[in-house]
Amino acid sequence: MFKINDNYQKLPGSYLFSTVAKKVNAYQTANPDKKIIRLGIGDVTQPLAPAIIEALHSAVDEMGVAETFKGYAPDLGYEFLRSAIAKGDYASRGTDIAADEIFVSDGAKCDCANIQELFSLDSKIAVCDPVYPVYVDSNAMAGRTGTYNFDTEKWSNVIYMPCTVENDFVPELPKETPDLIYLCYPNNPSGSTLTRDQLQVWVDYANKVGAVILFDAAYEAYISEADVPHTIYECEGARTCAIEMRSFSKNAGFTGVRLGFTVIPKDLKCGDVSLHSMWARRHGTKYNGAPYIIQKAGAAVYTPEGKAQLAQQVAYYMNNAKVIKEGLKDAGYTFTGGVNAPYIWLKTPNNMTSWEFFDYLLERANVVGTPGSGFGPSGEGYFRLTAFGTYENTVEAIERIKKL
Amino acid sequence: MFKINDNYQKLPGSYLFSTVAKKVNAYQTANPDKKIIRLGIGDVTQPLAPAIIEALHSAVDEMGVAETFKGYAPDLGYEFLRSAIAKGDYASRGTDIAADEIFVSDGAKCDCANIQELFSLDSKIAVCDPVYPVYVDSNAMAGRTGTYNFDTEKWSNVIYMPCTVENDFVPELPKETPDLIYLCYPNNPSGSTLTRDQLQVWVDYANKVGAVILFDAAYEAYISEADVPHTIYECEGARTCAIEMRSFSKNAGFTGVRLGFTVIPKDLKCGDVSLHSMWARRHGTKYNGAPYIIQKAGAAVYTPEGKAQLAQQVAYYMNNAKVIKEGLKDAGYTFTGGVNAPYIWLKTPNNMTSWEFFDYLLERANVVGTPGSGFGPSGEGYFRLTAFGTYENTVEAIERIKKL
Repeated sequence: MFKINDNYQKLPGSYLFSTVAKKVNAYQTANPDKKIIRLGIGDVTQPLAPAIIEALHSAVDEMGVAETFKGYAPDLGYEFLRSAIAKGDYASRGTDIAADEIFVSDGAKCDCANIQELFSLDSKIAVCDPVYPVYVDSNAMAGRTGTYNFDTEKWSNVIYMPCTVENDFVPELPKETPDLIYLCYPNNPSGSTLTRDQLQVWVDYANKVGAVILFDAAYEAYISEADVPHTIYECEGARTCAIEMRSFSKNAGFTGVRLGFTVIPKDLKCGDVSLHSMWARRHGTKYNGAPYIIQKAGAAVYTPEGKAQLAQQVAYYMNNAKVIKEGLKDAGYTFTGGVNAPYIWLKTPNNMTSWEFFDYLLERANVVGTPGSGFGPSGEGYFRLTAFGTYENTVEAIERIKKL
Repeated sequence: MFKINDNYQKLPGSYLFSTVAKKVNAYQTANPDKKIIRLGIGDVTQPLAPAIIEALHSAVDEMGVAETFKGYAPDLGYEFLRSAIAKGDYASRGTDIAADEIFVSDGAKCDCANIQELFSLDSKIAVCDPVYPVYVDSNAMAGRTGTYNFDTEKWSNVIYMPCTVENDFVPELPKETPDLIYLCYPNNPSGSTLTRDQLQVWVDYANKVGAVILFDAAYEAYISEADVPHTIYECEGARTCAIEMRSFSKNAGFTGVRLGFTVIPKDLKCGDVSLHSMWARRHGTKYNGAPYIIQKAGAAVYTPEGKAQLAQQVAYYMNNAKVIKEGLKDAGYTFTGGVNAPYIWLKTPNNMTSWEFFDYLLERANVVGTPGSGFGPSGEGYFRLTAFGTYENTVEAIERIKKL
């Protein structure tokens, strides 16, 4: 009789955002007249920018004509997109990343989830707490995290690095040496950042202990302060210790379009084995490339028109962040984020747990947020709101919260 | 110091089609004046059908307007597409597959490669020999296949089921009991089929020994004979033992568009754990859905216009298959396939090895095919040609082969 991968059985509950969606659907079904405003999952609401739409239409037309039809894409992504990324995201920041160190994919979530496959099953991972659940869950599914303790809400074989108001949401170097360190900056869920100097400490540490930093920079477009690095490769020595994962979801509204990329410098090696060649092998064997038309849309992000339009889109969402911050301040909440990130991380009032506040907000204000405890035990007592709603809904949601 | 997943180091050479591409590129670079005709990888050449193009344009327009913009897709695919598949591919064949047993993805290659994650690491796999390399390589990367023997070209812990001219390319039930059985019919690479009765034998066997059949039906659209099943669920009892993986690449030319789906019936269980819920969890945690615009294109495949246009496209390729078969027959080759599948599987002449014939064909006729040995040791001495070229190129390639 066949046997299952019983690591799946160790996972507590369902994926955070699936649980949120189920609760919201149940509430809406029971209360069909209520207008629910979603500031929960990090999903965008603005339509694709005109430059993107134009690129999509043009690529669709190419696919309808034999002479310009495109079949299987190059394993690692089209050269036109990889070059645009290398120039637009790396050369422009004075960092040394070649086009052929960039692997195009259908999104950062897949890449974040799949990257662990390159490493030994006995690798020890370190994560910030709270943290985007995909890092831990994908390692749990592979069997790296030990067993889950429902009381502490921790896995036995994961190094947790608490990020709370006490340490200003900046993790300390772990006492136990990890093999893999997941960092996400600007941070999901807390909206906090590391300065270039603070990130340099991690790069130096990783090089010293022989760890790999898996750096999730999905929110890079929201950085507004000068000393916050846009890529980990701004730090000296990152080419020998860091993999960077990037998304088009938040800078260009591609949550339903699906495009991302991962950077693996050729200098990142274990003995004489390069992780770059391993990931290339994985792409070739287990993946078939992002759609041509989507890659063309991705290239449009780097055109002058695309850049101008998307800067406006980011500004639109950051104005929402401002609305949220001002409203929460008026209402007496304590919070962080919303300066270099589209997330506002608030302390729940009256010692409510995160899920209690979730229910309270859903039922009393018909506003959906994300319970902080869903991101890890140190998220308990916190709550995440996103700036990705429409301006009108954001204003209304905040008005409702202020009236509570 | 971090450690890599050293199963990657056990993999022989690079992914088959990457090797083919490198050899062809090297030849073209050295001989820039030669017109190479590619009948190698299973990539299509006909442009997307008008109904698909129309659906894509329309969906792109929706993405450009706030009211119709779509963010994150439902984890398991849009209802409109899952329903169209359930009706068009399953109810229409008298099989009992519900829309919520269908998981939409970005292609059958990913699904074929990822599905092994649901099973225990000590699962024993059985594959036909020759076989699509992704089944074995994805299990090798996970560490299930033992060690590779370069002399026998076999993995120590894989059950190989030879499919050769001696058994008319129909595998025998294995002597050793497998946990997972990969079957692909119509077959890649040999173009052979199983009749409904022959497939029923496998379903009965899997139910008896408690194995799961991973059924790859990517070439279903090419079936022309009445007793060849279009889905494994035409067989009695398949709901308790079979997972089916399907592609839009070959029936609708989506190789560069990327769409597929996997069917996991809710009756397929290990004890009280349903594989359906495990795959749902995996989708939710490690995947973010196929792009909305691509899912809309997929739905167009099931419209009356889409069906009519795609039937013509399939007929176009099957006419190429006829050209290839007639030409090879005239030239005195022995071959199979090309009746219910777009692949022709020929015996290499003069006892050439598969790679010798590859080089011979590339250098002497400037025609690219795929060496049979790349699909497994029993593929040695065979060679695969595909019907996916243009008519003109197919005719020219065959003329060149006839002149050798």
